[in-house]
Formats: sequence, C-alpha cells, structure tokens
Amino acid sequence: MLGRRVIERWCLLAHPNTKFDVVHFVLLGSVMESEFVAWLRQRVPPHPLVPLGIGDDAAQIALSSGSCIVTSDMLMEGVDFRLRECEPRQIGRKALAVNLSDLAAMAAKPVAAIISVAVPSRMPITFLKLMYEGLLDLGSEFDVALAGGDTNSWKHPLAISVTAIGEPTGGGLVTRSGAQVGDAILVTGEFGGSILGRHLEFRPRVAEAIYLHRQYEIHAAMDVSDGLSLDLSRLANQSGCGAIVNSLCVPISDDAHRLAAEENFAMSALEHALRDGEDFELILAVSQDTAERILADGSLGVRITRIGEFVSDLGLWQQSESGDKQPLTPRGYEH
Amino acid sequence: MLGRRVIERWCLLAHPNTKFDVVHFVLLGSVMESEFVAWLRQRVPPHPLVPLGIGDDAAQIALSSGSCIVTSDMLMEGVDFRLRECEPRQIGRKALAVNLSDLAAMAAKPVAAIISVAVPSRMPITFLKLMYEGLLDLGSEFDVALAGGDTNSWKHPLAISVTAIGEPTGGGLVTRSGAQVGDAILVTGEFGGSILGRHLEFRPRVAEAIYLHRQYEIHAAMDVSDGLSLDLSRLANQSGCGAIVNSLCVPISDDAHRLAAEENFAMSALEHALRDGEDFELILAVSQDTAERILADGSLGVRITRIGEFVSDLGLWQQSESGDKQPLTPRGYEH
Repeated sequence: MLGRRVIERWCLLAHPNTKFDVVHFVLLGSVMESEFVAWLRQRVPPHPLVPLGIGDDAAQIALSSGSCIVTSDMLMEGVDFRLRECEPRQIGRKALAVNLSDLAAMAAKPVAAIISVAVPSRMPITFLKLMYEGLLDLGSEFDVALAGGDTNSWKHPLAISVTAIGEPTGGGLVTRSGAQVGDAILVTGEFGGSILGRHLEFRPRVAEAIYLHRQYEIHAAMDVSDGLSLDLSRLANQSGCGAIVNSLCVPISDDAHRLAAEENFAMSALEHALRDGEDFELILAVSQDTAERILADGSLGVRITRIGEFVSDLGLWQQSESGDKQPLTPRGYEH
Repeated sequence: MLGRRVIERWCLLAHPNTKFDVVHFVLLGSVMESEFVAWLRQRVPPHPLVPLGIGDDAAQIALSSGSCIVTSDMLMEGVDFRLRECEPRQIGRKALAVNLSDLAAMAAKPVAAIISVAVPSRMPITFLKLMYEGLLDLGSEFDVALAGGDTNSWKHPLAISVTAIGEPTGGGLVTRSGAQVGDAILVTGEFGGSILGRHLEFRPRVAEAIYLHRQYEIHAAMDVSDGLSLDLSRLANQSGCGAIVNSLCVPISDDAHRLAAEENFAMSALEHALRDGEDFELILAVSQDTAERILADGSLGVRITRIGEFVSDLGLWQQSESGDKQPLTPRGYEH
C-alpha cells in the first residue's frame, strides 16, 4: 500500500494586486499539521475583496484582462506511486491527471501544463521519456499544451510537480461553497479500492464537469482525492451546511469489493468506498429538480448517482436502513 | 560547493488550443542529456502558428482573453541549497526569486505564485514556517500573491517547486530571439562568486526590466542563471547571431575576486564572472544608440554595463587586449 499524502493541500482565490496580508485564504485541513495550517491562516488572512472569496481545488488569478485558474500537485515516489508497482507512463499520466481533476472540480477548461521534476541520477533516460509520453498522451487527449518545465537530477527519489493552467468556461467557476440545504448530493462514477490500479488510470472528469456546468445549474462541486466521506464533509463545511448520505446508494466499485475480500473484510466494501482516496470522481450539489434532470440525461458517458442531500445540521451524517440519522465520521487520506 | 543543476531547463511559447504535436518547442540545451532533449524536440515539434514562436525563460499561454506568462523552477536540497549553509527563510525566498527572475527576463509583470513542496518528515514545522516567511516576504515586496499549493511529506530531502504566473506589460514580451547584429550587449549588476551567498539573496530584476522595456526598445533579454558566457551564447544562438565580449568590460563582483583568492586563483575572478551560475542579472540586446541612452539614464538603481556586441559570426567570441577576436568557450552549470 502507498504511504499517505500529508501535510495538507491548500489553495485560495487570489486577486493579483492584493498583497499577501490581504489575500483570502482557505486551507483544506490536516489534522497532523494543524499548527502549520493555523499559522498560514494567520500569516495570510482573509480579505473581503477577493473574487469568489473562498478556497477551492484551484486558485483563480485575476489578470488585467480575464483570469486564469491554476492548480499544482506534486507526486512523490513511495508516496503517490511505487516504481516497482507501476509503469513510467502511468506516473506521467497521473501527474497531469490529478491536476486536470482539480480543474474539472471547478468546471474550468484546461489549457496548458508546466512540469518540474527531480529525477534520480541513476534513472535511465528511457524511463524519463516514457514518463513524459504518458503525460503527453493524456495532454493530447485533453488538448492541453505542455508549456515548459524544469528538469533536474539528484540522488534521491523521483518527485514530479505539475502545474495546470485553465480558464473559466462560460458560466464562470463552480466552487465548493455553494451547496444549499436541500440540495441533492450527486457523484460521478464509483468509489473505493483505487489503490488496486484505478488511481493510475482514472479519467479526469473534465468533459463531464464542463458539460454539466453548461447544461445545468451546479451549486457546488469538488473532486474526490482524499476519500468520499472526507471530501464531502469538506464541501459541506465550506458551504456552511451538513450532508447526509444514504449508504445504500453509494456506488461501490468492483475494486472496493475485491480489496475488501483480499483484506479478509477488515473493512467492508462500503467503508472502502467512503474512505479510500484517489477516486478522482466529482461530488456535485444541485437542486432536487436539477438532480432529476441530470439523472435522466442520457448523453453523459459516466454513471451519476444521488447519494444523499445537504442538510442544515452541520457535519456528516448517514441514513441507516431504518431511516435514522446517525453521525458518519469523515475518513480519508489525512488520518 | 553546491552540486550542479542538470538535466536541462526548457520552456516554450504555447498556444492553448494546439495539441502537443503542434507546439513550438525550444529546449535550452544540456550536453549531459542531449538524448533526452533530442527526443523531446522530436516528440513536441515546432509549429508555425505558435505566438512568438520560440522558447524562452517563461512560457506564454494564450487565453480566450489575453494571455499569461508562466514559469516553474524546482529547488532541491543538496543541489540548489544546503540546509546547513543557509537560513530556511533564504530557501523560500530563493524559490520564488528564481521564478521572478525568469519573468523579469521577459519583462513580464509577476502576479501570483503557486508552491509545491516535498518536506522531509522529520523537518520541524518551525523550519517550514520560516521557509514560507521568506517566500511571503519577497512576494509582498513584489506584490505577488501566494495563490495556493500542495505540501507533502516524505522521508527524503526537501524539494520546493514554485510556479510563477505573470502577464505581459504594455509593450508585449521580450524574448531571447530578437538580438540583431551590431546590437550592444548590456548587462545589469555584477557577475561571479554568487555561491558565496548572493545566490540566496539576489534581487530579481523585475522593476528594472519593466522600466527598461517601457522606456526603451529592447531587442532581446534573458536572465543569467547558468553562467554569463553560457547564457549569452544561448541568447545569441536563439537570435541567429554571434556575440563578442570585451573581457575588460565584464563587471566582476567582489565575490568573484574573493572566491578566486580563496581558491588560490585556480580560476581568475574574470573566469568566475564568465562561468559561475546564479547571478540572476539580465543580459539585454539593444541598438548602440539605445545603449548610450540607457547608460546615461540616471534613474536606474542598478549598474548597467556594455560588455560587447552581437556579431554576424555565429558563436561566442572575446576581444583580446590587442583587439583580436578569439573564440570564447561558453561555460556554466551544465558542464
């Protein structure tokens, strides 16, 4: 099993002409590094004039004309992949894909990517080429230009940092903070067990996000990188509401069932679906009416499932088989 | 002494809607990794429709409205800094400063930065905070917003990758490819011996570049990261001309003299000035008339020196004391 991505991930929506001390900052929490997070909050406090005003999967940067959306993720050998467990192409592909997933979460259109790599000095050049091939192939599929980078060697493991640049689509950005009490919780795809391989091969939901944003009113969205229950609790929290999940409705992947069986049911397939990370599916908040229309929309190439709704009681909840509301502990990569 | 930053650095000016196979690519060479470079050139071949058409210190990304300029540099423990030889603040400062220098080279205005870090798991949080303080302080000086990032821990040395986003100033971008035969070679500041400390404390020439670009016609520019002679030869090469340097005019830093003395004059101070890296000063190509006006401009806060001129004979040359033209071998970090 892979190690866990910690300290924390954070982003904000920044105005270019604000100084650091007036930039609105939202940190996507980490229990482990709460001291660091608290410090960053204090160091870069909120500001009322920042566009959209809250942190999200990517940062919006206002330019003299228009704006761009930027996100960055670093993958590290032994943490996000193991060399002996994956193909070099898969590493390059994943390095770009996780960033495209962040742009998809905001319904932004990816435009270009820039890559910084620390390469082990003994790594064969063939490996490096294959890694870039994987990245370039995915870029080509999504019409994303490779815009440049910085490639360095050192005597330590491979680290690859990709920054993806996108732009808002017609209707502006979708954020994490717009879910309303009563909204349906929709999710794309299936959850759990991505560690068995899907975390290297997932398809970022870029086209789906842009399509849904164009056709329907999406109140809020995010991508699931750290685990469905954890990320859903974050979206609800940033929207100032709670969320209740009907566990019977959670789409459980075959991988989750397989993993549960392989591990002798130490965790159920449902638990894997709720807490495994790196599904890179979307959580959407939409009105119940919109949910009906989306669920009836035959033109989406991906499964969409209603798994619950946003509620006024803060926190994360699950509906039991008897219909009772019970607390559901958000779990995922940070624990 | 620090190790050397190799494999290579590369960037391009990309159009967002071009696929990889139609993106114009210019690689900033590396002898060591020429095979990788050759492969990348073949994999991402040039395209006539790419704006500005050539690679540079940063990549221009055309958006639906306007464009942004993006550059990325990764600093690695043991390669770009040693923990025991510098303050944490200096690492954060340098990580942003090298990127601002790349934007300065194109006379672009910095707007925001995004940071990905791989942090050794045993590193105290105080260290991390101080590192960010250094970065935030420099950002504040240059009115650059910290837009987000990805912070991870692992059991290996520190790596910090900063992507800086800027935008063109009024007159558009300055590139490396516009030097003309007969143009003067101007440089800001002084060269050599930055390893004695200046590589951690240099001030990126952002304001100077924007001022010069606004007031004068700058044909070409780049920043000196890998060594004056090497980077000058690259600029000349990308402009399709050669360059001759009057060695007597090269502004040699006190550090270069000190380093030469410390090393028992194994290399002269001039040699240090010509081949040490990380000066982060600017090389400018301007007409001789413009050079006169810039040299007489009292409002620039930095020393400007004419060190030679661009010539039709390809390659790098030096003028001897007797006035003869002799080949000058470009040297710098890649050797």
